[in-house]
Amino acid sequence: MAPKATTMLHLLLFAVPFLSQLLPFSSLALTQDFCVANLHLPDTPSGYPCKPKALVTADDFHSSALAQPGPTVAPFNTSLASANVNQYPALNGLGISATRVDIHPGGVVPLHSHPEASELLFVLEGNLSAGFVSAGTNVAYVKTVGKGEMFVFPQGLLHFQYNLGNTTAVAFAAYSSPNPALQIADYAMFGSSLTVDVVNKVTFIKKEEIMSLKRFFGPSAVPS
Amino acid sequence: MAPKATTMLHLLLFAVPFLSQLLPFSSLALTQDFCVANLHLPDTPSGYPCKPKALVTADDFHSSALAQPGPTVAPFNTSLASANVNQYPALNGLGISATRVDIHPGGVVPLHSHPEASELLFVLEGNLSAGFVSAGTNVAYVKTVGKGEMFVFPQGLLHFQYNLGNTTAVAFAAYSSPNPALQIADYAMFGSSLTVDVVNKVTFIKKEEIMSLKRFFGPSAVPS
Amino acid sequence: MAPKATTMLHLLLFAVPFLSQLLPFSSLALTQDFCVANLHLPDTPSGYPCKPKALVTADDFHSSALAQPGPTVAPFNTSLASANVNQYPALNGLGISATRVDIHPGGVVPLHSHPEASELLFVLEGNLSAGFVSAGTNVAYVKTVGKGEMFVFPQGLLHFQYNLGNTTAVAFAAYSSPNPALQIADYAMFGSSLTVDVVNKVTFIKKEEIMSLKRFFGPSAVPS
Amino acid sequence: MAPKATTMLHLLLFAVPFLSQLLPFSSLALTQDFCVANLHLPDTPSGYPCKPKALVTADDFHSSALAQPGPTVAPFNTSLASANVNQYPALNGLGISATRVDIHPGGVVPLHSHPEASELLFVLEGNLSAGFVSAGTNVAYVKTVGKGEMFVFPQGLLHFQYNLGNTTAVAFAAYSSPNPALQIADYAMFGSSLTVDVVNKVTFIKKEEIMSLKRFFGPSAVPS
Amino acid sequence: MAPKATTMLHLLLFAVPFLSQLLPFSSLALTQDFCVANLHLPDTPSGYPCKPKALVTADDFHSSALAQPGPTVAPFNTSLASANVNQYPALNGLGISATRVDIHPGGVVPLHSHPEASELLFVLEGNLSAGFVSAGTNVAYVKTVGKGEMFVFPQGLLHFQYNLGNTTAVAFAAYSSPNPALQIADYAMFGSSLTVDVVNKVTFIKKEEIMSLKRFFGPSAVPS
Amino acid sequence: MAPKATTMLHLLLFAVPFLSQLLPFSSLALTQDFCVANLHLPDTPSGYPCKPKALVTADDFHSSALAQPGPTVAPFNTSLASANVNQYPALNGLGISATRVDIHPGGVVPLHSHPEASELLFVLEGNLSAGFVSAGTNVAYVKTVGKGEMFVFPQGLLHFQYNLGNTTAVAFAAYSSPNPALQIADYAMFGSSLTVDVVNKVTFIKKEEIMSLKRFFGPSAVPS
Repeated sequence: MAPKATTMLHLLLFAVPFLSQLLPFSSLALTQDFCVANLHLPDTPSGYPCKPKALVTADDFHSSALAQPGPTVAPFNTSLASANVNQYPALNGLGISATRVDIHPGGVVPLHSHPEASELLFVLEGNLSAGFVSAGTNVAYVKTVGKGEMFVFPQGLLHFQYNLGNTTAVAFAAYSSPNPALQIADYAMFGSSLTVDVVNKVTFIKKEEIMSLKRFFGPSAVPS
Repeated sequence: MAPKATTMLHLLLFAVPFLSQLLPFSSLALTQDFCVANLHLPDTPSGYPCKPKALVTADDFHSSALAQPGPTVAPFNTSLASANVNQYPALNGLGISATRVDIHPGGVVPLHSHPEASELLFVLEGNLSAGFVSAGTNVAYVKTVGKGEMFVFPQGLLHFQYNLGNTTAVAFAAYSSPNPALQIADYAMFGSSLTVDVVNKVTFIKKEEIMSLKRFFGPSAVPS
Repeated sequence: MAPKATTMLHLLLFAVPFLSQLLPFSSLALTQDFCVANLHLPDTPSGYPCKPKALVTADDFHSSALAQPGPTVAPFNTSLASANVNQYPALNGLGISATRVDIHPGGVVPLHSHPEASELLFVLEGNLSAGFVSAGTNVAYVKTVGKGEMFVFPQGLLHFQYNLGNTTAVAFAAYSSPNPALQIADYAMFGSSLTVDVVNKVTFIKKEEIMSLKRFFGPSAVPS
Repeated sequence: MAPKATTMLHLLLFAVPFLSQLLPFSSLALTQDFCVANLHLPDTPSGYPCKPKALVTADDFHSSALAQPGPTVAPFNTSLASANVNQYPALNGLGISATRVDIHPGGVVPLHSHPEASELLFVLEGNLSAGFVSAGTNVAYVKTVGKGEMFVFPQGLLHFQYNLGNTTAVAFAAYSSPNPALQIADYAMFGSSLTVDVVNKVTFIKKEEIMSLKRFFGPSAVPS
Repeated sequence: MAPKATTMLHLLLFAVPFLSQLLPFSSLALTQDFCVANLHLPDTPSGYPCKPKALVTADDFHSSALAQPGPTVAPFNTSLASANVNQYPALNGLGISATRVDIHPGGVVPLHSHPEASELLFVLEGNLSAGFVSAGTNVAYVKTVGKGEMFVFPQGLLHFQYNLGNTTAVAFAAYSSPNPALQIADYAMFGSSLTVDVVNKVTFIKKEEIMSLKRFFGPSAVPS
Repeated sequence: MAPKATTMLHLLLFAVPFLSQLLPFSSLALTQDFCVANLHLPDTPSGYPCKPKALVTADDFHSSALAQPGPTVAPFNTSLASANVNQYPALNGLGISATRVDIHPGGVVPLHSHPEASELLFVLEGNLSAGFVSAGTNVAYVKTVGKGEMFVFPQGLLHFQYNLGNTTAVAFAAYSSPNPALQIADYAMFGSSLTVDVVNKVTFIKKEEIMSLKRFFGPSAVPS
């Protein structure tokens, strides 16, 4: 296995100079005008190392990751499909990514934040209620957002959406980062390994309620 | 008029401290969690000064700027609607904005670039051909992009879209900046005040062809 | 009042050139090596406009905002004192700020996040439990942090601290922004104008529990 | 070959700790005050990984890449020499690079843009016409720039220079990035693999003219 | 040794995908909410590559690097302990770090700068004199800073601290970078390999004085 | 005078909307592709507010600030001319600026740093010695730099240049910021208001030597 790993690594790291010798005429870029992620190498604070440019094709810049609804997260009655750098490596270093949200009737995208990005929501079908809470003032900014309308959620603030109608509401959400994190407050409070006592101490929610919600959001229910 | 301007300015600049004296309990934010643009004050390299937070409402974060097709740009048979910081001031400082493109049958979004942003295109209806040219290598990356599919154009590179079908193709384009510029190569070459001789010299396009295109893209045809 | 505002504005905006004429020899900086905030002018996405350099003194760079415990927030039995750009204008544009936290016995800094900054906590007295929850994986990272020890909370993630001992625990927290926002989950959920129904819908917490906590964290209890 | 690659990699990745054991006194930096590029490792969105500091010498910071005119690009009658991170690895992470342009009589640097950088042009010899076109307004800003004079081209905008005199004009161009891309409009339009039909569709230039220019700028003419 | 290095590398680079196959249920993050440094891989301009998230524990976010005074630097009668990315890898990419300074009676932190960061100094014990000199104007901003008080030093400017009392003064300094460099003017002038003639030429300090200070700060005295 | 200031301000702030009403056809930019500084309004951490685009002409982008040697700084026998945002407002927000250095025989640019920028030096005439000292390791990197050659000084590090020949050496220095500060170590140590005792304490230079150098670099000798 070690020799195989070595060869693979050799390919990953040395593809650029080797390929340049094999190609009859050099088509190697002299500059970095894009940096498609090589997900096999470790991430850095600015993103993944670049795939050798000679191996990049038009397919890298195209994605159908959001063409269909993603898997439904049962507790929320909502389907989520992601197109960030992990699903769509060409976004690496480009400061943008997207998600498709299909909120079924009665469904919700519960209170959550994106620590690394602002979100611009564009409604494709149906009517949503969208809102966020300002830090500091605790003012809640909430609006009904219909088909073709938009709502913007500033970076890192807790926000939510829920369906207001009887049909599935569909939205395209764009983010100002190729790799925005997603932190759902319920999972942080009730789905992590924090004990009931700790959650009670840091949220003031009653222990019985926490226990009840842990059954709902506990480790086995974590969407991956 | 001067006194009126003074009063207006006074309102713009001093609204925060004055309002804080009028409100029975302070709801002023202690921190900047968003910065809705005050378009009446001069822009800065990081964006517009912020509208006083006490005057911000949920309406600021909502926009229907892209709910309908924008005005049709005749030469391209394409309708463009914009939602950047000028139309949607809440985007100020948030690193994101959007455009709606309705490309009618035979229509095109001609070769152009966004000097300040990458673009993530999501097709809502129809089939497009989308492509860009790499700097340095001149490799063209071109793909057919159908309904629900995406294509990403790296920052600052020349790119285009055109309709492949018999019905209007509609797309939502998100940008990694609240205020991406838009430079259409044809307008730069044939719609500016550059003389035929200069354009010939810096593009090598024949003078007759330039004159012909200047009639098409000249100053009076500039979309504003 | 208008003339007074005009004069004040005139002073704010034109102090630099006017002062340069009054001073017997010019000591005006030719470059921006710091930018002490002028809090009377509107904020921008990169921070406040600069106070004229000729009016800046050594006092601007010094602060005793954290020399004493801040006001106690009763529900948490914790005293908070802030030193961000609003209290300490010299931090403007410098990418750093601080808070002093005095957590009394049994006290807590409840689950919260800083949308704009990472936090480095240095314990001055006592023993704390400090923890945060990762986005995506929901793994909770929790440690006891004693005197002289540190814990770092990555940007935008929900985190908490609580006192583990019988004496007041004191900590100095530094942030990677001159103006990090502070969003306390309880205030966002129970202290905002969101109705019980909406909070229930987006958190799955039972309505009775929400009503109970709204009495505790409701608008009148918001710390300003 | 695999063992050799392994050894090479081992050297690249482990040079720092190993060298520190061999050196009689530690000269390892505790901090990153520069990051000379290791061009043998893959690029990242922020630049190349750093060469081990112990292997860096004064020679790394010196370059004679622009001491002589670069190779002449025949169609433009202009010689171009580059000093970006690929030729001058010490620029990695430092936000600056340069080019030397020798425009022979009648020569031109045709319409182009740098997607990743602004350009500050300093004329060393002769007289140039330099200009760029604003995005959005299509206003052309054009000036004669003589010896010792400068012209600045804002990031990502299409611009050009051409010689106004009978002797070679020479200029030093500095960029606000260690690795600005260079996109020449003619090569993007006529030198890429885009078909005549596509170029016609996205530029409105007549097919005969495109065919004529493809002969001039086609793949075999691409400067590498 | 080579096979061992290969295996080690294999572990470093491929731990994520391999671990994901071993774990009964996937707990891999889909997003980057932190990036603990892997110090065994080369640094980049944005920081070190990330340690595989599955290997990160709560211990990574905790540090006692500043719990005790660091080693005393004899010439300054000051003890310095550092907590930057090299000692505290979790700070990687988070924009913050810290130092503990124990200045003994008569001791000093001599004139120095941090090229990559601003510094916020919080005094824990004693009384310091803290000051910096503005660039351009050469105005010195100096203050006495007592227990619980702060002083901020803008990025890259020469500054100093010295003890004003008869007991050890202790301070916690936070920086706006995970890896600020530290450049002490005396070591740059008298502790480097620059010859007496060169130092005299570029500082105008008399040669005898330089020779005298080189004996004090010369290579053998460099703190590492 | 107050009314006049009001009118002036009114012009500065409201020129854009007013001009748009006066112009027969709108040529207002919808986007920010450049931001020429309005030096009459206060600076911000990201630069100056923008001059109304309708008032910008090609002259703004052109500068002859470096066409002739700047004023000679007697102590150094060197002439310095600057082209940063203060002399060349179009550089605002563009991340670049420049200086012209004419070092006469025997002349020197003494030990200094640019807290906000890296510097790329291009020698136009003569031979220089150029060097900088690394932070942390105190390694000095020094080279002779001849005509047409370059040397790069990483951000914030102390560096110097001096003439090695019998004729004036001339260099063009580009910076990675529109407004890099300039801190000359001698002026910081001997030209500021710091007392002899303080300078002695924080540099260990003998008091007699400090007094001697204060006569040379003291307040009256500060170049402005």
